[in-house]
Amino acid sequence: MTKVIPRIQAGFMELLPGEQILFNKYLKIIRDTYEEFGFVPQETPIVENADVLFAEIGEDTKKEIYRFTKGDDDLGLRFDLTVPLARYVAMYFNQLQFPFRRYQIGKVFRGERPQKGRFREFYQCDIDIIGNGNLNLVNDAEIPAVINRVFEKFDLGDFTIFINNRKILSGLVNSLGETSKIDEILRAIDKLEKIGQETVRLMLVEDLSIKVADAEKILKFVKITGNNKEIIKKLEEFEIEDELYRKGVSEIKEVVEKAINFGVSEKNLQIDLSIARGLSYYTGTVYETKLLDDRIKGSVCGGGRFDNLADSYTNQRLPGVGVSIGLTRLFSQLLDSGMIKVETSSVAKVLIVPMDVVSNFCLKIADEFRKAGIPTEVYTEEDKFRKKLSYANKMGVQYVAIVGDQEEKEKKVALKNMLSGEQELVDVNSAINKIKGK
Amino acid sequence: MTKVIPRIQAGFMELLPGEQILFNKYLKIIRDTYEEFGFVPQETPIVENADVLFAEIGEDTKKEIYRFTKGDDDLGLRFDLTVPLARYVAMYFNQLQFPFRRYQIGKVFRGERPQKGRFREFYQCDIDIIGNGNLNLVNDAEIPAVINRVFEKFDLGDFTIFINNRKILSGLVNSLGETSKIDEILRAIDKLEKIGQETVRLMLVEDLSIKVADAEKILKFVKITGNNKEIIKKLEEFEIEDELYRKGVSEIKEVVEKAINFGVSEKNLQIDLSIARGLSYYTGTVYETKLLDDRIKGSVCGGGRFDNLADSYTNQRLPGVGVSIGLTRLFSQLLDSGMIKVETSSVAKVLIVPMDVVSNFCLKIADEFRKAGIPTEVYTEEDKFRKKLSYANKMGVQYVAIVGDQEEKEKKVALKNMLSGEQELVDVNSAINKIKGK
Repeated sequence: MTKVIPRIQAGFMELLPGEQILFNKYLKIIRDTYEEFGFVPQETPIVENADVLFAEIGEDTKKEIYRFTKGDDDLGLRFDLTVPLARYVAMYFNQLQFPFRRYQIGKVFRGERPQKGRFREFYQCDIDIIGNGNLNLVNDAEIPAVINRVFEKFDLGDFTIFINNRKILSGLVNSLGETSKIDEILRAIDKLEKIGQETVRLMLVEDLSIKVADAEKILKFVKITGNNKEIIKKLEEFEIEDELYRKGVSEIKEVVEKAINFGVSEKNLQIDLSIARGLSYYTGTVYETKLLDDRIKGSVCGGGRFDNLADSYTNQRLPGVGVSIGLTRLFSQLLDSGMIKVETSSVAKVLIVPMDVVSNFCLKIADEFRKAGIPTEVYTEEDKFRKKLSYANKMGVQYVAIVGDQEEKEKKVALKNMLSGEQELVDVNSAINKIKGK
Repeated sequence: MTKVIPRIQAGFMELLPGEQILFNKYLKIIRDTYEEFGFVPQETPIVENADVLFAEIGEDTKKEIYRFTKGDDDLGLRFDLTVPLARYVAMYFNQLQFPFRRYQIGKVFRGERPQKGRFREFYQCDIDIIGNGNLNLVNDAEIPAVINRVFEKFDLGDFTIFINNRKILSGLVNSLGETSKIDEILRAIDKLEKIGQETVRLMLVEDLSIKVADAEKILKFVKITGNNKEIIKKLEEFEIEDELYRKGVSEIKEVVEKAINFGVSEKNLQIDLSIARGLSYYTGTVYETKLLDDRIKGSVCGGGRFDNLADSYTNQRLPGVGVSIGLTRLFSQLLDSGMIKVETSSVAKVLIVPMDVVSNFCLKIADEFRKAGIPTEVYTEEDKFRKKLSYANKMGVQYVAIVGDQEEKEKKVALKNMLSGEQELVDVNSAINKIKGK
């Protein structure tokens, strides 16, 4: 029989068991933290109607959609979790309570050309808070608190949540009389880190016809440094007579102060006036998070405040604020760089290893261990004893409970700690206590 | 601006927050139980290469595949989790330990015509144990133990795990000299409950040209009743001289005995000789699980033993045994029938409600609650107090911590139990203990 070559598409992450266990650990931290902050779970279909997807999409992303027909239906795979959120809130508007605080963790799809570090199928882990008509600024301060908690629990070293407010730079641009070019200027500034100051200067001056002196002013402005208090003080002292600018400065001041009260460590939150986020969608606070370890490239988490979530689907005004963690890309970098390592390929805490065949006594012990809440596996195959222990080693299981004739007669197990090598003959209850670390 | 109508495809389940919280409860029970039995997590892509999918598929299912191209790639959405498992085991064969015990919980896609109770996107929750060359029969006994634990935790009333062995009926058919018709006969028997005995008799006699007396014998055979011991005794006493038959009887006897030792209650496990499962794929033990509550139609969980998992992709012989819970369909029936009800739309245990604006004291309390492990939400909007309490009621949150000037001065909160209506002024630590039920 001719075989089909077993393979998957490039750009789709698939993990070995030990890696998957590790991935799920991070996924669980995110989910648990989101719920700790009272965000409710949401799950939308992977497949959406194409017109729903295409109502809220840029030209560049359009080409990346996996689009197809089935019968008369024109369909596509979701490319983010924000469009489904917008569609959902518009669709169930009357059945939801506002502010609507939801999280969604799920795979999204972008059929771009695969390249290192880019995925076609990847996890987004989103939180958003959507208001009905209005949404208090205190919500902008809670988002960094969630991210701060997630990355503290991740325990991947120091990290910085960079925060900015698009009103500030927009106000500066207003004051220069270049209001019509705001989106292009913000997009150029967003590329600073990637393409460097000189190229951005050229973009501003040549592509956008900004006066040389003004371009200089903008570039100098976004490079203002200092701690949060110092930056805010400088911003307040600038003589920029623009209402939007003043609003942006007062917003960022309040958001930073409240975020600290929400539990964000001062050292983890930093105003950075060059953070612009590419999407014109954002209208106020914007966030990006970076790990200090330079093995992790780029932002691991981004988001911001928007004025209106779902105007493609409804007339309701739905302002919101949210953020998304790109877990697939982060995890892939963590693994590739060796920052994290597979420690076990087993979710069981104990493996029951029969000396000979699997007796009913072995099964009963497994049942008792499991009922005591201990994840338990039984080695079922009639292999040589050495092969059974080698399996335990390769799986990286912590305890092995060996059962032979003698143990069965005494209703005991020989409990071996695979790390220390210690082994002792104990009854089942003692084994349970040992394994549970009591 | 013209609006796109916010909607989803028929046959895709999408839930409101309270329903989603409930759904996730069942999902978590399944995941936790699978891990308690030492199954490792697996996650394969939603999108597979079309030739990989089509290598292992029946003609009927082919039409249901969501198939599409992207660039030069011919792709499809996975329609079950077994084909991806087969592809995975063949692909990573040298990196896996055997027996390979994995679970996968994920969405699969079948673009059939939508009808009540049928879904186009639905969860499968699969466990399988795959051996390298051989796989001990004790594994067939562990599967019902997992299912038994899951449905005990589900707490949806009594349930029965029906068990059979396809070798028994195949052996009987052999003994009648109709070996070549085994698959068709089993498929006909599989329809017994659906189409009734008379129609199956006609299928056997007219479509499959089975002698009337033999058809009678088969139909009588599959209706043998009694408890497990009685049925096994009857099977052993039949004078059917066929090796496969004898093997089937001895297997089912061993599997039932070992399943009981693995912790399955006698009352939850029942031999039923009419359980055949449609797929010719199964070669030995087969399972189906039903709830006794007749509001839940059909089997909620099915599976069995197979001789070779992945012969479309590899020459390795990979026998296995597994089972799948169809959670989407079960959940939809539970909700529609009123067997389960939404109790809360909140994952938070406490909502902090400021009498006036959200002060920094409110944010600090939220931080302390969360650090103590209490899922906490803050009501952020500047609404009337009555509206805030109405939100708490509608969300179904258990505790409300009211904070006004007086509370802030005393560093206390007015903690209100929304169920009992009790309210008391307590400091933050006492509030934490109350909420945690200490």
